[in-house]
Amino acid sequence: MRSAAYTGNGTVEVLPSEPVPPPSGHVQVRVAFVGLCGTDLHIVHGAMDARVTTPLIFGHEMSGTIEEVGEGVAGWSTGDAVTVMPLAWDGTCPACLGGHQHICQNLEFIGIDSPGALQTLWNVPAHTLVALPAGLALDVAALVEPTAVAVHDVRRGEVAPGDHVVVLGGGPIGVLIATVARHVGAIVAIVEPDPHRRAKIEQLGHVAVDPGSTDQAAWVAAWTDGAGADVVFEVSGAAAAVAAATGLAKVRGTIVVVAIHGAPREVDLRQIFWRELRILGARVYERSDFETASSLLADGVVPSELLISQVVPLTAVRAAVDDLERGLAMKILVDVAATESAK
Amino acid sequence: MRSAAYTGNGTVEVLPSEPVPPPSGHVQVRVAFVGLCGTDLHIVHGAMDARVTTPLIFGHEMSGTIEEVGEGVAGWSTGDAVTVMPLAWDGTCPACLGGHQHICQNLEFIGIDSPGALQTLWNVPAHTLVALPAGLALDVAALVEPTAVAVHDVRRGEVAPGDHVVVLGGGPIGVLIATVARHVGAIVAIVEPDPHRRAKIEQLGHVAVDPGSTDQAAWVAAWTDGAGADVVFEVSGAAAAVAAATGLAKVRGTIVVVAIHGAPREVDLRQIFWRELRILGARVYERSDFETASSLLADGVVPSELLISQVVPLTAVRAAVDDLERGLAMKILVDVAATESAK
Repeated sequence: MRSAAYTGNGTVEVLPSEPVPPPSGHVQVRVAFVGLCGTDLHIVHGAMDARVTTPLIFGHEMSGTIEEVGEGVAGWSTGDAVTVMPLAWDGTCPACLGGHQHICQNLEFIGIDSPGALQTLWNVPAHTLVALPAGLALDVAALVEPTAVAVHDVRRGEVAPGDHVVVLGGGPIGVLIATVARHVGAIVAIVEPDPHRRAKIEQLGHVAVDPGSTDQAAWVAAWTDGAGADVVFEVSGAAAAVAAATGLAKVRGTIVVVAIHGAPREVDLRQIFWRELRILGARVYERSDFETASSLLADGVVPSELLISQVVPLTAVRAAVDDLERGLAMKILVDVAATESAK
Repeated sequence: MRSAAYTGNGTVEVLPSEPVPPPSGHVQVRVAFVGLCGTDLHIVHGAMDARVTTPLIFGHEMSGTIEEVGEGVAGWSTGDAVTVMPLAWDGTCPACLGGHQHICQNLEFIGIDSPGALQTLWNVPAHTLVALPAGLALDVAALVEPTAVAVHDVRRGEVAPGDHVVVLGGGPIGVLIATVARHVGAIVAIVEPDPHRRAKIEQLGHVAVDPGSTDQAAWVAAWTDGAGADVVFEVSGAAAAVAAATGLAKVRGTIVVVAIHGAPREVDLRQIFWRELRILGARVYERSDFETASSLLADGVVPSELLISQVVPLTAVRAAVDDLERGLAMKILVDVAATESAK
């Protein structure tokens, strides 16, 4: 078997390794496809060096089939098609005891804090497995994890049929949020400065707004008959988007913070007060979000064929990261199995 | 009759005037007491010159008795003890149609956008009247409006019995929020840098924390067994308090923005995301908040005798504003009737 690991200093190495039998309570998954995301970029760029231990086999958006079931694991069989919800909570902290295990105060994220999916045979705790619906192709199934993020965000924002929803940032997560919100019955617009992304967004059937040439607040006011947006999703991570967001939401409207902001941002708290706005953080997902996401992909609600820009072998991970960085792709999948058969 | 009016350039003038009969749909109120608040300070300091028309009779925290009932007004009689909810909404904007009249997109605030309570005989729209409970003294009743703010804030923050609540800022509104939250069953601490205010807060039976000598986040963590506060109220208006707030709330905790922040503030959005925090704006009140506030004052829940620092005549309004500015008082009431009888 092989794996792709971040070895520090911006380097990704593909290394051969021996498979290890699944420990008790674990399952060995033969990885099919792994999607690369923004977090993987951060890892490879060294932005998470203080958190990760190298060499780190990364990757957490994946699909595969069960190769071997470890001792003490019930309900799973060899050959089952699965994805993994890559969270490990302690079950004992106040957040867990309060019912919010997915944001456990000591949450471990598999693929960041422990080895991830960019390996042929991956041992994971059985509780992380999510069964894939029959008929869901394994390449498409690698989109379950990012789709689950979007499902969680839309659920957290309490998007309702007929709502006007603005998504700030039209990368993969922004487009998935727009897609899920539209499926819920919302009327959606995506604000995105990059013209290539706007073209893609329009190809996906969404309204794309250029913040460089459009007064966003005036546009949203006209779009909503003077009311403002019911829900605004901040997915860009940009200071300018944060500054704009408070001017787009209606009285008692909601702003959902999806992006990770590396520095404190200036927020117009006077607008928060004046219109009694609500800002909600939304992080990762819960099991129900994974299950909903699987169904949405199986039902063809998410246009996976338009979202998957490239499929590359394990040896091309470093180059794929560069392509993502330069905005040349929406979603790149790594075909781990193909790499193995070609070795 | 007399009135106190802001006439521009930091000046308050006491002027004689002739009473005007109440127009149709209005009621003439003989004003008893008027409380001075932060908004009045802003007006007198010229900070709201762009909004107000001078001379402006200001004041909006008040009590009084009905002197005369105008044409077309039912349900009110001469002599009724009342206070006024000083809001006028248009009833037609999207916020009003959405059920949020109290934050109407074109809200007029009586005492800022139209003449306020610092006058002997005040004509107000009948719909603004709120009946005072029997036995509620008129000086204490002047606290209904600020108490209604606190009731609204605590309701907006969904404070529940057993919650740990932190109030950032121990002025009159902060103390009232703490008092209402404690009445709801919460365990409360107030963070306040001023030692005189901390002494007052402790006299009122609340825990006072000095942010200058205490690591707030560590203090709250210890106080809550590592969980963090359920609800944090930002009442100070200070940038430092905003920066601290996100470090005090528990996973899925709430931060209520009560203060008016004149400039955008740096907010740690990463913490909002990481712990799925909720920030809520809370502005003014609804009728039910006024009714609850009246009951809390009538029942002695709010320690009005400790909150009312001074009672002064109409001629001393300008000096009282200075005392408030220098932090020499919690709440100063203007005894409008006494002024009249002494003229």
